[in-house]
Amino acid sequence: MRRTRNVLFVMSDQLRYDYLSCMGHPALATPHIDALAARGVLFTHAFCNAPVCGPSRMSFYTGRYAFSHGATYNNFPLRADESTLGDYMRPLGLRTAVVGKTHMQANPAGMRRLGIDPASPRGILIGECGFEPFERDDGLHPDQALDPDLRYNRYLRGLGYDSPNPWHDFANSAEGGDGSVLSGWQMRHASRPARVAEEHSETAYMTDRAMAFIEGAGDEPWCLHLSYIKPHWPYVAPAPYHDMFGPDAVMDPVRDERERADPNPVVAAFMDHSESVAFSRDEVRATVIPAYMGLVKQLDDHVGRLVAFLSDRGLLDDTTIAFTSDHGDYLGDHWLGEKELFHEQSVRIPLIVVDPGSHADATRGTRSNLPAESVDLIPTFLEALDAEIPDERLEGRSLMPAIRGESAEGWRDAVFAECDFSVRPARLALGASPPESRGFMVRTDGWKYVEWLCAPPQLFDLDADPDEYRDLGRDPGYGKIREEMRGRLLDWTLHRRLCPELSDAAVARRTGKAQERGFRFGEW
Amino acid sequence: MRRTRNVLFVMSDQLRYDYLSCMGHPALATPHIDALAARGVLFTHAFCNAPVCGPSRMSFYTGRYAFSHGATYNNFPLRADESTLGDYMRPLGLRTAVVGKTHMQANPAGMRRLGIDPASPRGILIGECGFEPFERDDGLHPDQALDPDLRYNRYLRGLGYDSPNPWHDFANSAEGGDGSVLSGWQMRHASRPARVAEEHSETAYMTDRAMAFIEGAGDEPWCLHLSYIKPHWPYVAPAPYHDMFGPDAVMDPVRDERERADPNPVVAAFMDHSESVAFSRDEVRATVIPAYMGLVKQLDDHVGRLVAFLSDRGLLDDTTIAFTSDHGDYLGDHWLGEKELFHEQSVRIPLIVVDPGSHADATRGTRSNLPAESVDLIPTFLEALDAEIPDERLEGRSLMPAIRGESAEGWRDAVFAECDFSVRPARLALGASPPESRGFMVRTDGWKYVEWLCAPPQLFDLDADPDEYRDLGRDPGYGKIREEMRGRLLDWTLHRRLCPELSDAAVARRTGKAQERGFRFGEW
Repeated sequence: MRRTRNVLFVMSDQLRYDYLSCMGHPALATPHIDALAARGVLFTHAFCNAPVCGPSRMSFYTGRYAFSHGATYNNFPLRADESTLGDYMRPLGLRTAVVGKTHMQANPAGMRRLGIDPASPRGILIGECGFEPFERDDGLHPDQALDPDLRYNRYLRGLGYDSPNPWHDFANSAEGGDGSVLSGWQMRHASRPARVAEEHSETAYMTDRAMAFIEGAGDEPWCLHLSYIKPHWPYVAPAPYHDMFGPDAVMDPVRDERERADPNPVVAAFMDHSESVAFSRDEVRATVIPAYMGLVKQLDDHVGRLVAFLSDRGLLDDTTIAFTSDHGDYLGDHWLGEKELFHEQSVRIPLIVVDPGSHADATRGTRSNLPAESVDLIPTFLEALDAEIPDERLEGRSLMPAIRGESAEGWRDAVFAECDFSVRPARLALGASPPESRGFMVRTDGWKYVEWLCAPPQLFDLDADPDEYRDLGRDPGYGKIREEMRGRLLDWTLHRRLCPELSDAAVARRTGKAQERGFRFGEW
Repeated sequence: MRRTRNVLFVMSDQLRYDYLSCMGHPALATPHIDALAARGVLFTHAFCNAPVCGPSRMSFYTGRYAFSHGATYNNFPLRADESTLGDYMRPLGLRTAVVGKTHMQANPAGMRRLGIDPASPRGILIGECGFEPFERDDGLHPDQALDPDLRYNRYLRGLGYDSPNPWHDFANSAEGGDGSVLSGWQMRHASRPARVAEEHSETAYMTDRAMAFIEGAGDEPWCLHLSYIKPHWPYVAPAPYHDMFGPDAVMDPVRDERERADPNPVVAAFMDHSESVAFSRDEVRATVIPAYMGLVKQLDDHVGRLVAFLSDRGLLDDTTIAFTSDHGDYLGDHWLGEKELFHEQSVRIPLIVVDPGSHADATRGTRSNLPAESVDLIPTFLEALDAEIPDERLEGRSLMPAIRGESAEGWRDAVFAECDFSVRPARLALGASPPESRGFMVRTDGWKYVEWLCAPPQLFDLDADPDEYRDLGRDPGYGKIREEMRGRLLDWTLHRRLCPELSDAAVARRTGKAQERGFRFGEW
């Protein structure tokens, strides 16, 4: 009987669900990630719970919706007492660490209220979202925000990349004919190669660091979150990946003039964001998307390198591997750039789970259309490790039915995601207050509904209009569907897990026991 | 200019909104509490946010709905990192303590995850809901749950009340003709006097202890939560209060045969609870309600004693006083006993706020029908103290507009309350799982709607049917109203405060600033 001993939780950043060959990309071959899918289950309908880095990751790492964990946007601090992946893994004996990005924002004020020194070992662990920071690197280091101690910069400098900020000047910049530094922040440079050698680029480096962690773990079981920084912008790929794809390999944009005719006010405000304006230009797409594809291709090669490394050490037989992304990237689809809103290109994610256990043999290489969410990963890891799944905090469900090939009775028939755009320019354009700058998506097989707190809703008929061109959110003919979707949303909110210490079983054990404990109320 | 220096937050337990003469009780004169109302503002439409002790109090003490603070029933632990009244008062220099009941359930597991020793000074403070436990006494001490160190029991024993549990055997029991102890747990004894002398009873004792705290505070400003244990059951009053009222002083029951004809399944299950069965008998009401009234009368006298004490020390001029209750008591109305459900008798509370500040002079002795909630008290105290009201956690609003006589623009037009009956026998009768055993009330001026997760809704037309006899929750003619009320409920849930460290102002300061900080995404 093979069974899980380690967990390798691989995340890519801003990787669209459809930019893998196993998910149908016509021009981008990702044989190594496809090989993972062939060894496990490919979840074709997986969704992040908040299509932006921070809140999405907090849902992955806490097993709770943003509505519950509360860190609804990048750099919004997570409550100090949220339990995280490490809190579930460490009691099982797994050393739990991160290599790469978490986008965790520590909560020193909350820690101080609790008497926890943020610089103490416990404070650091809480501040790192429960991960041992073997290599914490969120991958965005403009000069203004540069951490002078960034390990990757020290690494690059040690290799002779001479700059106060080699992350920017080498790994995320190209070079002009005159030797000038062409910043990757400017997308016009995306077709040029990064100034860093491929083997020193972020993707290669993080893979090396993951291997170093695994080597160092020795005989101790581990849970490693390898969290790649790419293909998130700056969109700059090192040679040879920078020109592996040409404009002809770029998929046609998923966009329609009807979308610009009378958009939902929130969508309209996002269409005015600089990234949307830029990505609505064909020139930008033709320049940037090949670089994005190159970054995915590079990522795939390093996934292959890592799997070979695990194979060489016999670790494939006892390591559960999950491969996913925190959200997608519009890349100009729907006249939008970046992510945050709820079209499939933004909210849908790739998800592969390889469980080495014998119980998973029957489903290897299969595809599951079970509606999966980010919050499902912690329960899945727990079940792979034969551990109990505490229901007092976790809001997702183990994906094991699909992995074991069992029927997933009572599985959710809708997925949920959230958006908080309170720090984005769209808020000012809409004249909305911070608490009104939020939206909630409910997506069933057939319908996608978005409730905006400061604007009318969106509604899409996914059967008749799979590309989501026709927003029925204000169409008087669809009031009944909207009402039904709002009912689902209400039902979802009212079922959030509230009490972090009481499992359903513990509650059930108390039911009707007050009188036994001497509280004899109601006695005559 | 007079202004607030101290806060005296007086809570009674299970005191119905209509058992005060200032709130219209025809036979129960409460001149001292009425005098408070004459010195301040009487909120005639105040509601608790969860009509049962624990969760209601946690809403008072955290300024957050149960849906946010999560301690949805008695003895469900509060998260260790919830900020409480003391966290708001102490930084302003107010020593913050409790005398009496909080029903706080500490969360040692959560504390240990955070490295906090529950027995350390900080652990004790967190475990006491942020109150210095000057005298913590939840007032329910059956032999099985007796704390051997209960201070009140030591006090009684010191006075010669000889028993291992004088709380039960003297303060909450009567005596038979043969000297036998007749337990107050048995309501048939409610017309007899307690075996304790009035001046040693819980209400007198807690008043004494409040005075001791205030004396001891000296020149230091303070916030004292004086939290009386009565008129909560056991319904036993000491002489002379035990027979101050006769059955003729008891108000007619608010109940109607229509209510039993086809009740909502949740209500039906509660009607089968022992306390409901008992209180549906006229004999029980005629025996118990006079004792309940006696306990209220006694409470009123001690409020008078306390106010005189404050007056003697010149403290009335700089002390904000709030008087309220955690919830009501059915006392047989609607064929129910106890509380928990959402009829007015259960969910509505008395509320008086006396602000000594000059700004409040214009409204002294006025009545306000502003829909007030438990969560409003912390913001009110903060504003009385001229302190900022942090909006990142607090979900209520300062009642100061009504106290200053200003228009309360944009004030809520609905109040909300919650019920979690997962540990009550009703859950078993309904065959519901713990997470399904919950309900949510929305009450506007005209309508009261209750969403049950495991049963059809309730709906009352408060204009046409102020006694709430006719449940329209399943009436096909009221679908549109129900839909509107569900919409209000959804709106309420989606506005819960999520991120405990970021105020709206802090968020607003960040809006649109990413590019300034060097994150130049979207640039061509």
